[in-house]
Amino acid sequence: MQTPWEHRFAQRTQRMGSSAIRELLKLTEQPDIISFAGGMPAPEVFPVDEFREACDRVLREQGSKALQYGATEGHLPLREQIVRHTARYGIEVTPENLLLTSGSQQALDLLGKILINPGDRILVESPTYLGALQAWAAYGAEYVTVPMDEHGMVTEALENALRSGPKFIYVLPNFQNPTGVTLSLERRQKLLELADRYGVPIVEDDPYGQLRYEGEHLPSVVHLDGQYRDSCETCYRGNVIYLSTFSKIMAPGIRLAWVIAPPEVIRKLVQAKQGADLHTSTFNQLVAYEVSRGGFLDRHIKKIRDVYGERRDVMLAAMDGYFPPGVEWTHPEGGLFLWATLPENLNSAEVLKVAIQQKVAFVPGAPFFPQGGGHNTMRINFSMASPEKIREGISRLGRVIYEMTGESIAI
Amino acid sequence: MQTPWEHRFAQRTQRMGSSAIRELLKLTEQPDIISFAGGMPAPEVFPVDEFREACDRVLREQGSKALQYGATEGHLPLREQIVRHTARYGIEVTPENLLLTSGSQQALDLLGKILINPGDRILVESPTYLGALQAWAAYGAEYVTVPMDEHGMVTEALENALRSGPKFIYVLPNFQNPTGVTLSLERRQKLLELADRYGVPIVEDDPYGQLRYEGEHLPSVVHLDGQYRDSCETCYRGNVIYLSTFSKIMAPGIRLAWVIAPPEVIRKLVQAKQGADLHTSTFNQLVAYEVSRGGFLDRHIKKIRDVYGERRDVMLAAMDGYFPPGVEWTHPEGGLFLWATLPENLNSAEVLKVAIQQKVAFVPGAPFFPQGGGHNTMRINFSMASPEKIREGISRLGRVIYEMTGESIAI
Repeated sequence: MQTPWEHRFAQRTQRMGSSAIRELLKLTEQPDIISFAGGMPAPEVFPVDEFREACDRVLREQGSKALQYGATEGHLPLREQIVRHTARYGIEVTPENLLLTSGSQQALDLLGKILINPGDRILVESPTYLGALQAWAAYGAEYVTVPMDEHGMVTEALENALRSGPKFIYVLPNFQNPTGVTLSLERRQKLLELADRYGVPIVEDDPYGQLRYEGEHLPSVVHLDGQYRDSCETCYRGNVIYLSTFSKIMAPGIRLAWVIAPPEVIRKLVQAKQGADLHTSTFNQLVAYEVSRGGFLDRHIKKIRDVYGERRDVMLAAMDGYFPPGVEWTHPEGGLFLWATLPENLNSAEVLKVAIQQKVAFVPGAPFFPQGGGHNTMRINFSMASPEKIREGISRLGRVIYEMTGESIAI
Repeated sequence: MQTPWEHRFAQRTQRMGSSAIRELLKLTEQPDIISFAGGMPAPEVFPVDEFREACDRVLREQGSKALQYGATEGHLPLREQIVRHTARYGIEVTPENLLLTSGSQQALDLLGKILINPGDRILVESPTYLGALQAWAAYGAEYVTVPMDEHGMVTEALENALRSGPKFIYVLPNFQNPTGVTLSLERRQKLLELADRYGVPIVEDDPYGQLRYEGEHLPSVVHLDGQYRDSCETCYRGNVIYLSTFSKIMAPGIRLAWVIAPPEVIRKLVQAKQGADLHTSTFNQLVAYEVSRGGFLDRHIKKIRDVYGERRDVMLAAMDGYFPPGVEWTHPEGGLFLWATLPENLNSAEVLKVAIQQKVAFVPGAPFFPQGGGHNTMRINFSMASPEKIREGISRLGRVIYEMTGESIAI
């Protein structure tokens, strides 16, 4: 059927590209596939009973408010609660520094809308979060990249990248998506020092910071920025915009996240959000507030850590057992993902095709590289599948890789 | 505090302009003001008990699904339900024609993202919906306008406007926001005939279509388009993109709306939505499905019609009694708004300032005109306040206008 819209699409739709994550999410819906592809929390740790109680209470006590339009900035009690939560991680802000968004993906989209002119360069880790690349494609972003190693962004290569005049630096310091790698404290300091010297501000994306399974919590970049510039322990200087979310510590299905930024940035984001979706679901904000009251989140996060920490261990052990020599992988201290590198002569997209026939799935790494590369890399999620499924899935994947490398299977 | 972001805002933020609706929404939060400013449904008609039952059922039976990430297109059972609902209004489509969005505001934003290049002209009614102007400012839209009268867009002026080559026509045929006016059947036919002749497609925005308090339901433009071109009673030709929403027939706080479009447009919208917010709240989609099952919406819409119809009548009667000669207003057959025109020498923004002192509010009409004008017009909402508040508020507003026109008060 010919319709008059096809030749009317805006130029930016050409940049929006294919929808790798979406197509892969569809795969994970096939019930017989063991999927390490999505970035999904385990449904076993969803606080379903707490949601039932919270919905009931909110609708009994505040039904008219919960179902009505709300302010674009978000529900004030929830913003105040996030301010208190954030203070415990060393960032002192006020509700004027905070906007609630419909998931962190919307925060990335709104930041693109208010900051990126076509052709602007954004400095990113390579690889980096695919969702950011998808959000910013619509605004004509270009990229300057800094490679990653097992301690995160290689800050030795940062100065050269900063000389190209990027609009901002986008960094995921904790258990990065896709690599699972954590930026070391020394490099966090180095990042701030160089950002300061070159006058380039930072967007810190931290969806997983609280999901650490080993080692010590590292101060966030936004926290260190306060200390670095004027020896104030906890003050917010505004040079770092900080993103976090309820998706990984409560539930992604309610689409609720937040941005911390200077008030003048929040005002622009609010304008942009007003045009984008008016406001985030009032109902979900009130319910999230109820669920997270009384210290519930702290207890709940402990439970999530236990479950995911075990799954990470199971996956690492299974890889040791089932993956052939010549495959390498990261050892994430938290988060949802690890990152494997196959021998140079293997293409992970080809591996995926065979793997799907063997009913196991992952995400090929190449789309996470904004300037190409990574043909032999793969992102593997360990939070979603049960330990038994993880063992079985890694065993299947190991067999596929063995066959494709031509190695004989060890077992 | 100086932060490095201020001089880094994208050029498009200059076009996003001030946030008139948002500032006004804030006013309506003052409890002692009788506000005719918002476009809010009456909380008395929210189906709070049905929501409580639906939340309980969804979380008991599908908690893991409801709180998890979902597909960008939306929850398939809900899309199928909307398809059935839509068929009864004469539009036969499939789920492949349908995308669920986070409110109709997001549908407008995504349409802007996939269709509007900077400088593209969009043909709109003058005045038109302010939210569309806000959404499309970020994409550099320009406008060609067609005036309104009591039968909607003046189609006699349409041909001339079409000669300027607009990308699409944006029209709100039923009880338009802001004027409350309905496009007559003859003009709907004329609109389609001219759109066809000039090869310009149409975006039909229909948030209020089912909220009719008098007169006969008129076929939607998308329905007439099917009949017009190939004498098929109900087929969907794809020349008209149709928007509607749960905000006015269920609750706006859940942010749930839909777009009907040709599959190739839906695919582009899905790509854009993936970058914008991944997907609309799974939980809210499952709950909305539960609430609307079993014919509930039909019964509920009757109740809403009764409540709003009475309020409209009360407001029209109050205006007859309290407004001075020289003020004119529309007689909406449905929807949430009416539109008043003051004598030429009055500025409605000035009237608002005095009105707020007298604890009554409305929206000045000027921002709804994309090319200026309307200084003496005002949008007045009749759905939100109780009949008693409507009488009191219109009485206060009448006194303010009397004083400012210099007329002596009749009562």
